[in-house]
Amino acid sequence: MKKIINQPAEFVPELLEALFKAHPDQLSYQDDVHSVVRTDSPIKGKVGLATGGGSGHLPVFLGYVGTGMLDGCAVGDVFQSPSAEQILSITKRIDSGKGVLYIYGNYGGDVMNFDMSAEMAEMDDIQVRTVLVKDDVASAPPEEAARRRGVAGMVFAFKIAGAKADQGASLDEVAAATEKALANIRTMGVALSSCTVPVVGKPTFSIGDKEMEIGMGIHGERGMKREKLQTADEITERMTDAILADLQPGAGDRLAVMINGLGATPLEELYVMYGKVHEILAEKGIIVYRPYIGEFATSMEMAGASFTFFKLDDELIELLDAPAHTPFFTQL
Amino acid sequence: MKKIINQPAEFVPELLEALFKAHPDQLSYQDDVHSVVRTDSPIKGKVGLATGGGSGHLPVFLGYVGTGMLDGCAVGDVFQSPSAEQILSITKRIDSGKGVLYIYGNYGGDVMNFDMSAEMAEMDDIQVRTVLVKDDVASAPPEEAARRRGVAGMVFAFKIAGAKADQGASLDEVAAATEKALANIRTMGVALSSCTVPVVGKPTFSIGDKEMEIGMGIHGERGMKREKLQTADEITERMTDAILADLQPGAGDRLAVMINGLGATPLEELYVMYGKVHEILAEKGIIVYRPYIGEFATSMEMAGASFTFFKLDDELIELLDAPAHTPFFTQL
Repeated sequence: MKKIINQPAEFVPELLEALFKAHPDQLSYQDDVHSVVRTDSPIKGKVGLATGGGSGHLPVFLGYVGTGMLDGCAVGDVFQSPSAEQILSITKRIDSGKGVLYIYGNYGGDVMNFDMSAEMAEMDDIQVRTVLVKDDVASAPPEEAARRRGVAGMVFAFKIAGAKADQGASLDEVAAATEKALANIRTMGVALSSCTVPVVGKPTFSIGDKEMEIGMGIHGERGMKREKLQTADEITERMTDAILADLQPGAGDRLAVMINGLGATPLEELYVMYGKVHEILAEKGIIVYRPYIGEFATSMEMAGASFTFFKLDDELIELLDAPAHTPFFTQL
Repeated sequence: MKKIINQPAEFVPELLEALFKAHPDQLSYQDDVHSVVRTDSPIKGKVGLATGGGSGHLPVFLGYVGTGMLDGCAVGDVFQSPSAEQILSITKRIDSGKGVLYIYGNYGGDVMNFDMSAEMAEMDDIQVRTVLVKDDVASAPPEEAARRRGVAGMVFAFKIAGAKADQGASLDEVAAATEKALANIRTMGVALSSCTVPVVGKPTFSIGDKEMEIGMGIHGERGMKREKLQTADEITERMTDAILADLQPGAGDRLAVMINGLGATPLEELYVMYGKVHEILAEKGIIVYRPYIGEFATSMEMAGASFTFFKLDDELIELLDAPAHTPFFTQL
């Protein structure tokens, strides 16, 4: 196993201890390091925003806890859901009396535990609403969009929710703005190599040296097709076409475009792909309002990338443009 | 070759075209896309700061062109020096009359071309001074420190020079502050895998599945020892001990600490190593003033990390703390 780790079972606790040593001004925990909250929680007059999920996707999930984004995150082991108790713990910690919005990816274990936490929180008179992220177009056809997985598009959902909550909006208003954003967000990924879960100690799956999987999920879930590795332009065209067919933006529309590295793909390659996306969109009269090129949602050392397109209107642009600052993401 | 690219020879031009499409407000070029400058160049009353080097290290080098850091960068092909003509072109573009400081890594081809450009610039009455980055302790013993390679420590040199130049300091003053910073910066790297130069099409070297190379350079230059892969704690202890022996900070000293991923190493693993660095330093009474954990100087898809320690005093802290904003690096 080619990893720089200690005991595999200690991987996530060690990561979290280091996190609190590195960012004590911004992040803290209460009873358990697996519950990350902003040091200034709860923030008076603001809806609390919580997420959670398995480790191994940094900066997702906990990397977006901070000013202008989330208030708390429940941290599971690698690729494992956090427990309902962890989620409840941050829910209590970040609720200022205005309620808490859960924003997380559509995976069975996470849905079960967040729903259980929501029920327990409501017994404590904390109002909870949930917005599920289901942006991965490769994971189900449009007519079954409710089954889709949540991937890198969640970062935009966090950003929009954070900005709306900072305006003093109500729980229903923040949920509505986040739902509106997600209705306009689509993602698709391509993987060139596997990753290795530390406690397993061997790659989750294998892809041949000259193969790729179009539409693969961030835990290695099957995509649309395993096939011969193509050029950057060919990959970009296929990903872009698939997303555009689903999102259907028109000439004059403005998009935020995220080219996200899954872990081992160099920034240089992400830029090469961005160049082609920009060209394809320009040919259709579609405007890139703001590009995001880098690692925003990873799968440890997986090679590959995901493309996320986010169709904007004036309200969403105002929220997207609001400043944000976390230990892993800063936007002026 | 497991890369998302088009024609290998077009890799760098495509990257640069995408860069200018993505960041038109911040970065521009004059005659040749291989010469990246700030759109607001030259900046009146400010010393111009230039760097350059081979591609394949993003965010190094061009990623640090922006507010509070550099004014221009000459971009070579992957792992190749830019030409003297490219360097001269940005020198002319960024000189406001106050002179230009060259800050770059100590590699033969780069030294030759920057020196040639400096001579040509002086014939054009542009004053040029040079500060060479030689921070890699693994590349030569202390008594031959002048032979050392420049690696991730250059990012701190860019930061300090940028802040000093923004204060309106003279060319000599900016050079002196940068030299002072570099006298207090040491780096060492460990590699677990190779990378592949696109036009070569196969890995530069090979490391066995259970091997690592302590002290390896960012182009795959030999380090101190090829040996069995160790745990995160063991690797961290060895790197930290080697740097501390060379830098010799004492109890009460304040350090900036950079744990830099070389390309394929997950952020999670970088944090695990940071946790151990923090612990070792705390035991010695050394304070981490500011941690930098992420990818700051890479070698494409190489797995591994480098550790950089930067011993600070009040003047250096003021300069390190100054805000900076480039397309690849933002510090509030």
